Amino acid sequence: MARIPPNTAKGTRDFLPRDLVIRNRVFGLMRETFERYGYEPLETPAVENTNVLEGKYGEEGDRLLFRILKRGRDLESAGQKLLADAAGEHTSAALARLFSDEALRYDLTVPFARVIAAHQNDIVFPFRRYQMQPVWRADRPQRGRYREFYQCDVDCVGSSSMTVDAEMAAIHHDVFTGLGLTTSVTRINHRGLLDALMQVSGVSPEQRVGALTAIDKLDKIGHDGVREELAKAGLGDDAVSRLMKTIAISGEPQAVIERLRAVLGESEQGERSLSELGQVFASLAAMGVPPERYTFDLSLVRGLGYYTGTIYETILPGSRLGSLGGGGRYDRLIGQFLGRDLPCVGISFGLERIFDALAEQNVDSGAPVTTTQALVTLFSPETMGASFAAASALRQAGIRTEVYTDVKDLRPQLTFANRKGIPVVVIIGPDELARDEAVIRDLRSGSQRAVPRGELAGEVRATLGE
Amino acid sequence: MARIPPNTAKGTRDFLPRDLVIRNRVFGLMRETFERYGYEPLETPAVENTNVLEGKYGEEGDRLLFRILKRGRDLESAGQKLLADAAGEHTSAALARLFSDEALRYDLTVPFARVIAAHQNDIVFPFRRYQMQPVWRADRPQRGRYREFYQCDVDCVGSSSMTVDAEMAAIHHDVFTGLGLTTSVTRINHRGLLDALMQVSGVSPEQRVGALTAIDKLDKIGHDGVREELAKAGLGDDAVSRLMKTIAISGEPQAVIERLRAVLGESEQGERSLSELGQVFASLAAMGVPPERYTFDLSLVRGLGYYTGTIYETILPGSRLGSLGGGGRYDRLIGQFLGRDLPCVGISFGLERIFDALAEQNVDSGAPVTTTQALVTLFSPETMGASFAAASALRQAGIRTEVYTDVKDLRPQLTFANRKGIPVVVIIGPDELARDEAVIRDLRSGSQRAVPRGELAGEVRATLGE
Repeated sequence: MARIPPNTAKGTRDFLPRDLVIRNRVFGLMRETFERYGYEPLETPAVENTNVLEGKYGEEGDRLLFRILKRGRDLESAGQKLLADAAGEHTSAALARLFSDEALRYDLTVPFARVIAAHQNDIVFPFRRYQMQPVWRADRPQRGRYREFYQCDVDCVGSSSMTVDAEMAAIHHDVFTGLGLTTSVTRINHRGLLDALMQVSGVSPEQRVGALTAIDKLDKIGHDGVREELAKAGLGDDAVSRLMKTIAISGEPQAVIERLRAVLGESEQGERSLSELGQVFASLAAMGVPPERYTFDLSLVRGLGYYTGTIYETILPGSRLGSLGGGGRYDRLIGQFLGRDLPCVGISFGLERIFDALAEQNVDSGAPVTTTQALVTLFSPETMGASFAAASALRQAGIRTEVYTDVKDLRPQLTFANRKGIPVVVIIGPDELARDEAVIRDLRSGSQRAVPRGELAGEVRATLGE
Repeated sequence: MARIPPNTAKGTRDFLPRDLVIRNRVFGLMRETFERYGYEPLETPAVENTNVLEGKYGEEGDRLLFRILKRGRDLESAGQKLLADAAGEHTSAALARLFSDEALRYDLTVPFARVIAAHQNDIVFPFRRYQMQPVWRADRPQRGRYREFYQCDVDCVGSSSMTVDAEMAAIHHDVFTGLGLTTSVTRINHRGLLDALMQVSGVSPEQRVGALTAIDKLDKIGHDGVREELAKAGLGDDAVSRLMKTIAISGEPQAVIERLRAVLGESEQGERSLSELGQVFASLAAMGVPPERYTFDLSLVRGLGYYTGTIYETILPGSRLGSLGGGGRYDRLIGQFLGRDLPCVGISFGLERIFDALAEQNVDSGAPVTTTQALVTLFSPETMGASFAAASALRQAGIRTEVYTDVKDLRPQLTFANRKGIPVVVIIGPDELARDEAVIRDLRSGSQRAVPRGELAGEVRATLGE
């Protein structure tokens, strides 16, 4: 028989049940946490008009958009039309018409900004929303980098209150704690503070990008490395030494703020940024987030454009995985669609890194490999009715129960359960039926016992350890 | 400020929180039901290689595939290359290279078949899986028909046992009952039985397609209409009258089977089909599915190719919505990828129709319009700490709780909760704080009462009616 090669498209993955048991547990915990903070779900289409996406992610981003061919036109007639059109004008214009003006979603933030503008009269502001959906980038696939992958964003639009900024760090704390990553630390800084620091340290506007890029590398190249890079970026000795002295300040957040007040002197931007950070740290304390789970980190930069206020990044100290997620305040994106700026603050979760972290810390070991909790065997045509009745009773009790498909010897049915990782098997043969009993076999321990049929659901639940 | 039009791509939709409250409730109930029957989740990429998709959905299907341009190549250089290539060969070949060999998923069945072949050594058979993901078709959008829409499939591969066929109807019954559509009826028939009926009624192989197409229209055009169409399809009077007499047979399934045994005489295919149907109906009774929720319907055809055994379709009698889902046994699809046939049976759910049915039957009226259950107000800077502590206590008790973003007058905060549809508001002002109390306001009734702060979570839960 002729076979079609069953490969997935480049850079994409199938998720089998054993993968989804863990993925759906993580997604479920995130959804629950977001909703517990009053964030509401939002979903946008995979396909967007290209004028929504183009120019939002830089030149590189435009090149990585997956563009879509206009509706179902077949290639031959499309080619004929193209050549006819191209005779009289630029090829690119002819080709552009060939494609639809559509492409696959590249991130979740730009579609969110579009939704705000499209539904501004239906949405009640401040609007808290979360979104967990795949995005597509025509990137070169490599280990841990895919062309189709999930993003997870949590944003609040329409408020400048620092309580929301604090909430972002609190949500990171709750999610990572819920996942068992209880050593996560959220680094917190402020873009306005960095700008003010540049100014008072004598860094000229042209040197800023180089200086920020250098500071951003502190955890990779150390203080000496940063000092070197700052010099390479053209900063004078005095500016380098002032900057290095300042970013070395660490400690309890309110104390750091006081020390920075002295450094920043009368910088208006510096004072505003410190005041905002002060409110964030006060709110975090009021929200009950343990102080060892966040830190005021003057070396956090998080990219060069985009963010306008507080910024966040969560790491696992001692792990090489880098950032598990981050975000910040960005007040100027929505305006591109809405025609007026709206204050926004948001965080995202790096899902692939989080799955790596769970594996690295063995948090997921011992997790079940299937959703199914019990297999009811089929012993003989005469006992089938009793087996189906038992399965119904288990299901009504909320136990996820599969009935084996065929009447067969017991051995292959047990092998099936074992290979799938189903922990409990229920057996009702003629002997059990005569005694109005069922046998529960725990495949993890190998032990089995007979129980009255009427008490089956409770007994299976006890065996499952629920 | 220059504005980008915030339109969705043609035939696609944004799902706002109020939409997702209902959609996620339905999706959640389906997932739970499928897993309760031992079906495991599977997810496949949105993007597939075109050789996986092409030729599986007929010519029309190939034309409706959304094809994707090769990675990020810019249009101008792509056009130059195309014209250079096209000089020496067919345009279609040059164009085909321009596009990636990739397209968006068109349904969930073909990717499922690909997964079976790709992971045949990891998968334990019989394999029960469900899949709920969007698909894309470059169709002309119209009312109720979209270019991006969710499909939901439930299949079991690797068993010919009729217990699984019965399970399909049982799952339809459980899902529709769970959704409150308690009058749904699943029509059941068998493609082999229809073929045998054609044969014994004297319908020639060339007339079969016409005859089946006519029978399929029974519920639309009635017995006289079908009789007319059968004649038009070239059937003789005798064949028409035999067929019409047979498909008029109805009643209790096992009785219908006995009457058909007489009609079918010694047709081997007829006997095998009736025996399979007998096992399906016996299993349905053993599974406890109420007899009024399914019917043996000899006029059910469900398309012309594809299915090879039992077929299913669920309707709401008295509603004009038509089929809410259906399926059947198809034993020859997987072979295209695996190189050998595997027995399969599956059903799908027509999600858009189901949402229409819920609206028509008002099953979703009174459903909440937000996931959020409580709003904690911010009265003054001095009471903020108490408000955040109250929110933490509510969240720990599992109550989805939003804290208003800013310290403000009470009125706009109440208006906010009202407009969002949040049912309960919690107020802690200085007076309440002094008395160690909190005020719970039920926005649905307008009533409010003060409760001790330590009992807040239990009291809010009581107010929510949980």
